[in-house]
Amino acid sequence: MTYPQSPLMGRMMSQPLLISSLIRHADRYYGDTEIVSRRVEGDIHRTTYRECHRRARKLANALTRLGVSMGDRIATLAWNGYRHLEAYYGVSGMGAVLHTINPRLHPEQIAYIANHAEDQYLLFDLTFLPVIEAIAPLCTTIRGFVALCDRDRLPASDKLPGLLCYEDLLEAESDEFEWPLFDENSASSLCYTSGTTGNPKGALYSHRSALLHSYASALPDALNVSARDVVLPVVPMFHVNAWGLPYSVMLTGAKLVFPGPALDGKSLYELFEQEKVTFSAGVPTVWLGLLTYVGQNKLKFSTFRRTVIGGSACPPAMMKTLRHDYDVEVVHAWGMTEMSPLGTCCTLLASHEGLPDEQKQALLETQGRVIFGVDMKIVDDDGKELPWDGKTYGNLLVRGPWVVSGYFKAEGGDVLQDGWFPTGDVAVINPEGYLQITDRSKDVIKSGGEWIGSIDLENIAVAHPAVLQAACIGVHHPKWDERPLLVVVKKPGADVSREELLAFYEGKIAKWWTPDDVVFADALPLGATGKILKNRIRETYRDYRLPTA
Amino acid sequence: MTYPQSPLMGRMMSQPLLISSLIRHADRYYGDTEIVSRRVEGDIHRTTYRECHRRARKLANALTRLGVSMGDRIATLAWNGYRHLEAYYGVSGMGAVLHTINPRLHPEQIAYIANHAEDQYLLFDLTFLPVIEAIAPLCTTIRGFVALCDRDRLPASDKLPGLLCYEDLLEAESDEFEWPLFDENSASSLCYTSGTTGNPKGALYSHRSALLHSYASALPDALNVSARDVVLPVVPMFHVNAWGLPYSVMLTGAKLVFPGPALDGKSLYELFEQEKVTFSAGVPTVWLGLLTYVGQNKLKFSTFRRTVIGGSACPPAMMKTLRHDYDVEVVHAWGMTEMSPLGTCCTLLASHEGLPDEQKQALLETQGRVIFGVDMKIVDDDGKELPWDGKTYGNLLVRGPWVVSGYFKAEGGDVLQDGWFPTGDVAVINPEGYLQITDRSKDVIKSGGEWIGSIDLENIAVAHPAVLQAACIGVHHPKWDERPLLVVVKKPGADVSREELLAFYEGKIAKWWTPDDVVFADALPLGATGKILKNRIRETYRDYRLPTA
Repeated sequence: MTYPQSPLMGRMMSQPLLISSLIRHADRYYGDTEIVSRRVEGDIHRTTYRECHRRARKLANALTRLGVSMGDRIATLAWNGYRHLEAYYGVSGMGAVLHTINPRLHPEQIAYIANHAEDQYLLFDLTFLPVIEAIAPLCTTIRGFVALCDRDRLPASDKLPGLLCYEDLLEAESDEFEWPLFDENSASSLCYTSGTTGNPKGALYSHRSALLHSYASALPDALNVSARDVVLPVVPMFHVNAWGLPYSVMLTGAKLVFPGPALDGKSLYELFEQEKVTFSAGVPTVWLGLLTYVGQNKLKFSTFRRTVIGGSACPPAMMKTLRHDYDVEVVHAWGMTEMSPLGTCCTLLASHEGLPDEQKQALLETQGRVIFGVDMKIVDDDGKELPWDGKTYGNLLVRGPWVVSGYFKAEGGDVLQDGWFPTGDVAVINPEGYLQITDRSKDVIKSGGEWIGSIDLENIAVAHPAVLQAACIGVHHPKWDERPLLVVVKKPGADVSREELLAFYEGKIAKWWTPDDVVFADALPLGATGKILKNRIRETYRDYRLPTA
Repeated sequence: MTYPQSPLMGRMMSQPLLISSLIRHADRYYGDTEIVSRRVEGDIHRTTYRECHRRARKLANALTRLGVSMGDRIATLAWNGYRHLEAYYGVSGMGAVLHTINPRLHPEQIAYIANHAEDQYLLFDLTFLPVIEAIAPLCTTIRGFVALCDRDRLPASDKLPGLLCYEDLLEAESDEFEWPLFDENSASSLCYTSGTTGNPKGALYSHRSALLHSYASALPDALNVSARDVVLPVVPMFHVNAWGLPYSVMLTGAKLVFPGPALDGKSLYELFEQEKVTFSAGVPTVWLGLLTYVGQNKLKFSTFRRTVIGGSACPPAMMKTLRHDYDVEVVHAWGMTEMSPLGTCCTLLASHEGLPDEQKQALLETQGRVIFGVDMKIVDDDGKELPWDGKTYGNLLVRGPWVVSGYFKAEGGDVLQDGWFPTGDVAVINPEGYLQITDRSKDVIKSGGEWIGSIDLENIAVAHPAVLQAACIGVHHPKWDERPLLVVVKKPGADVSREELLAFYEGKIAKWWTPDDVVFADALPLGATGKILKNRIRETYRDYRLPTA
């Protein structure tokens, strides 16, 4: 889309916003800054931005030799590590498109996505060899698989003839490669949403969207990243570009620490301490493991000071533990694959400084304010904008230069509503612009024409000391259409009764929001990104008969 | 300039980066946040971002009615205040070009600039009525002068027939105005450099350059502005857009405080305290007045925590006073009118944390590291890149999306060197990428083929307790070509001899750098932006005979 030009154009340098400029900057100004990776091989690997840039250039040469050209898709199935980072820059830098695939998907889904994307090559960590062997016969466009390892470790797989070795490819190439200059709206990377309905759909990012997102995400009221930070992205690089952190660390010059496949509490804690991590980011379930380990061993964090939690709502109890017991600032964030992903981050205003901690905590539990670039509104089912009064529920729409205008290959058709992207979330916004996601549109419980937010009910349940996980769904009720049913997984060794749990809601919410019943389960079904799959739970309890029915 | 497109373009929303989106954001998300102004009228005026947006829209309607259209230049001759801010957004937002003129220039220069820019209207604060009366007959393109006041205060000037009243213009208009969407490379604002040689030249900014600069300038390692800040720009809005602060406050939602014409220590201090200012920015000479007042009255700052000092090098003594006596963090910055203006900001790295304060101070006295977007290098007179060893002097070149590619109307011809902008500064860069401006190319003293930095010599002189101001210039020497002469203004009531001053250099620099002589002056000539005019001093002492000659 082009816009009219003024009769008088500015006289500023014309420089496209390109991902290659990030690594060029990191090399030139923070060349000796470390990148530390726990590897699939088990050891700790250390390198620098300068060396990363050098190897990214070698990779660009290797891919060129393999016949890859601008716009071609190169897939990865890899953990957070330095080789994956080289692919981020080598692939996008040369003008090809980095397609990060979530290895937790079913092999059939992976093959579907790789074929849909028409991937040319696929780079993978050795962990995923069985997946690769399973999908290889199904992938119709992939011309070669590249194992992210050196020759010594290259597996002899008779199911993968012609398997390429990443280190061999790099070894053979010169490190001289001039990053090409091209239109900043060119595609840089591709990430499919693990939608719960329909086929996966690809969000196709541009260099411009990635760069603007990088600037915005590093701002003081967003991730607040500086050259003094040591950043450990727990959020995977196959999950919306690890929330842009592989880009924003290069923009700011922060030291980078990659956890590799070891996401258990012990491994993470050791890496936090050894590398003096100051900042991390991930979904709530990961912090659960870390906090359990730290709590059981009565440990403290020496340098860890701030974390961004997103992907799904952070349980208030977890936020309080981090804030009060460990003095870690929690920035609750909200975004989507379709938003690169950051939309809002929760930080307080000067006017909140004198508030009692309970009120601060209540604000911090919201998803916060938009970052400049993103605009949001809530609308009713007819598209009419609703007030920001902190009470009115509405469908949340967003727009901005790092929000998709549609999906790759126009999958799903024209998705925008009047130029806005419908998030599928239901939210309230308070008069100060703080967003609170109350539910997914499809998860909201519609009781007698009113909306009950399932997330509120779940947050209360997990605040109970005996509850490990909870999901609240609407099940059929003859009078109210739907009423809430709470499904609970107890903590190992803990016990709690149905009646105790229902009593736990007293005084915390409007009485008519209280679930009509509780069932206990051994586990909740989790999706590939660690989110609870509510549609599966709804299926399980589709014919559940409530005692109130 | 266009760049080749990839066969695969991203599928992100196409939104131009426009200045109007900043005020729309501030209205929508920080609508109640205050803008406080000390007015020319003498009182304190309070408004909000929402009201500023409303009045900017009225202004856009008023200008449209006056026949102003896209690309037209609208000049201002005004202090930092809310009406000036409305012009920033009303003018640029509608697609016209805001031309901020430095009122401290000579009236002939102002008229030259207004004619060169072909300004259509000129908005001015009442302070500048005499200037306007002087230039009105000389201005050939200006169709109307607008006094920034209400009807009661509109002066009856027979030299200005048809003088327009700003508040009347706004009063007559609706606040309904849809900001137009246009190409982000369209010109947004114009600022002439007060070059010491040749005619003034205009830096013509674009909406894109302004927006990218806003993102970058708010980063933690730059100005570090958040919604919790209260920002008082002492740096004038006629001096490179007050270093972008009128834009970055809207991006971040910070409260804004304008000092108006009252830049004396007492007025500034009172405003800092009353409005709980946390952050300020200005040239060193302003802080001199503020620190003198605060020191004499034994006062402290209650909320002031961080300041950016630029425009010229911050004397180390001033930085130490701010840091140690007042606990104010000083971010030394460097930039140029041609750079929007920010290039580098000085913050420390994690690796510096354990350093003794003296070494920290030495680093903080440099101009710091580039902000992502800006790239720099030092070259010799043949354009060959020089090493970053902290010792080698070179001509400093820069490039980036907020650096000019040339001047308005191609004044000065093709100014770039191989795509880089020559800053006219001489600098060294250390291995960590810290820039130190050692001199202006024309101020460097060339003694026997070696370069002596005049700024180092001046910094030592002003560290002497009896010295108020100092300038060091090269004067002719029969053997060495040039040798340094120190020109000194003593503090009121203080005394120091030539010999004592020369002895003060011992052990602080290489012996051969020591000035050959000292002369005492009552005052140093200052330019319109408060900088010491060395070329005037050189003229004064052109035929000075050194005792060593």
